[in-house]
Amino acid sequence: MKCIFGAAQNAHAPARYMRYGRIGEFPESPERVTRLLDGVSRAGLEVVAPREFPLQHLATVHSARYLDFLEHGHAQWMTMPDASPEMMPSLRPVESPSGYPDSILGRAGWHIMDFSSAITAETWNSVRSSAFSALTAADLVLGGARAAYALCRPPGHHAYAERAGGFCYLNNAAIAAQHLRAKHARVAILDIDVHHGNGTQQIFYDRADVLTVSIHGDPANYYPFFYGYGDQRGAGDGEGFNLNLPVPVKSKDDVWQQALGAALQRIADFAPGALVLALGLDAHEADPLAGGAVTTDGFAQMAGMIAGLKLPTVITQEGGYLTPQLGGNLAAFLTGFRQA
Amino acid sequence: MKCIFGAAQNAHAPARYMRYGRIGEFPESPERVTRLLDGVSRAGLEVVAPREFPLQHLATVHSARYLDFLEHGHAQWMTMPDASPEMMPSLRPVESPSGYPDSILGRAGWHIMDFSSAITAETWNSVRSSAFSALTAADLVLGGARAAYALCRPPGHHAYAERAGGFCYLNNAAIAAQHLRAKHARVAILDIDVHHGNGTQQIFYDRADVLTVSIHGDPANYYPFFYGYGDQRGAGDGEGFNLNLPVPVKSKDDVWQQALGAALQRIADFAPGALVLALGLDAHEADPLAGGAVTTDGFAQMAGMIAGLKLPTVITQEGGYLTPQLGGNLAAFLTGFRQA
Repeated sequence: MKCIFGAAQNAHAPARYMRYGRIGEFPESPERVTRLLDGVSRAGLEVVAPREFPLQHLATVHSARYLDFLEHGHAQWMTMPDASPEMMPSLRPVESPSGYPDSILGRAGWHIMDFSSAITAETWNSVRSSAFSALTAADLVLGGARAAYALCRPPGHHAYAERAGGFCYLNNAAIAAQHLRAKHARVAILDIDVHHGNGTQQIFYDRADVLTVSIHGDPANYYPFFYGYGDQRGAGDGEGFNLNLPVPVKSKDDVWQQALGAALQRIADFAPGALVLALGLDAHEADPLAGGAVTTDGFAQMAGMIAGLKLPTVITQEGGYLTPQLGGNLAAFLTGFRQA
Repeated sequence: MKCIFGAAQNAHAPARYMRYGRIGEFPESPERVTRLLDGVSRAGLEVVAPREFPLQHLATVHSARYLDFLEHGHAQWMTMPDASPEMMPSLRPVESPSGYPDSILGRAGWHIMDFSSAITAETWNSVRSSAFSALTAADLVLGGARAAYALCRPPGHHAYAERAGGFCYLNNAAIAAQHLRAKHARVAILDIDVHHGNGTQQIFYDRADVLTVSIHGDPANYYPFFYGYGDQRGAGDGEGFNLNLPVPVKSKDDVWQQALGAALQRIADFAPGALVLALGLDAHEADPLAGGAVTTDGFAQMAGMIAGLKLPTVITQEGGYLTPQLGGNLAAFLTGFRQA
């Protein structure tokens, strides 16, 4: 299995984050990559750079105006007097009906959904490169590889068709799944990040060709709070093709693996041609975002269960924050997957 | 004409505000009241305290869970470790479908729509008292007064049925209008704050018994950005009973008065039994929020035009920020209204 990572991905580094109403440090830091690459090395994966793709590959899941905003919005923002170098709006379009504004201040509010997704001068190059890593991994799998691991930083699963949120800007897993659709009539996305994959859910919410399954801390008490409930099952043609499996916050291995069993059964019933695994490592018991109590061995066991599907698999990195165990958790997962 | 104001209204004083991505001072400060009371005095109005009302009067336009949140949410918030004394969530329910969470962190996101409406330990008592001032003014008008002025701070017109936003928590104008409905089959709300009255629009969006008309800086380039467009005309039974009259940002007296002429014609055609005037003074040429270029004389002239409707009128104070002219603008308006 290869690991795909591009150095440009790590330029993006906002400073600010909001936690309990206070401004603090941004947890989705470039240091994560150092630790994740250590895990990749311990698992014995070769690291290769992503290749470039035409931007149409991003437009398969994101709106044209959102991509334009990601590419050019920061420069427009900086023309405002006394603008912060971290683009961060104060309001969002919560109510209907709502209209799309002309001003960059309004557009920032339209496209940036929460306080954990500021946009800096470096963001566009980094998120573009992160998506290219996912697409390169999908290309390897389309070319016959059993699996490929895209070290996506910034991560992607909270990004909507036209909104950034939760450290995410482009939905790498969704972009990879759409790329796999060129060959496979049905593709499944399994998300085991401790946070619900809300962006992924929305992107495919009314479609039956991409099954979306997410296991995550119960949103009644955990980010993203408003999304990830069991009764969000898809709409229209997509009804029944979105499966949310919330588990209590701080659940241990047994609860996660029971939910994973249900997820894998649903995916097997769907009989997809390929799988995208949105791999968060933040369900770990030591993770600072405190949503799960999965152990390092637990990650290896879940990897084995997922590999048991015997599907061509693109793995995209999602969350997992700074702990001494971060690299070891990734190594355990990748090794567990390869040995299954 | 009497002025209604309760001292409890002024305890609410958040420190933080976000402008162009930077944290700065909260413009909706208690000092506004000092200057507005000076204007009241110059116009010769007697100041009386609001009376208390049962909370059911607030529940006519706000949801029960929102009122519960405003009353008890801050105490729940403060039980979180290291919580900021200013309740401010980092994310909002922008996408559908969305669910209502259990945790106070999620509920804060549900109910607080933007960064300019933090909730402090004092907020509930202040906003409740501000709404009581509006209700007391409505009672005076129901009792036969030609008009009454409620010095509502915090203001209200950006508050939705269950969301705070734009310095607003309870929609005083909507609460007053609903109170007037006990006597009058049709009530009109005219909003001349420089920002669109988006909360008021939504509260009555599907109703034909309360006509909502707002003149404001074009939301394509001005707060609240997503609401206030001309094509937002109401829905269902309310279709045609919401009229938005956006004017270019920094418009002068002539443009405002032309829009006001159209607003007054629509209100006259509606033939309401009473009027609620949501009176912002922030369209003034010196206002720091820089949305209009109305003069002090212009406010007096608009007051005369509105008084020409000859309707029983409740005036609620909305925006208007710290300038040396703030009190003078209010005095000019109130005097212009009385002399018409």
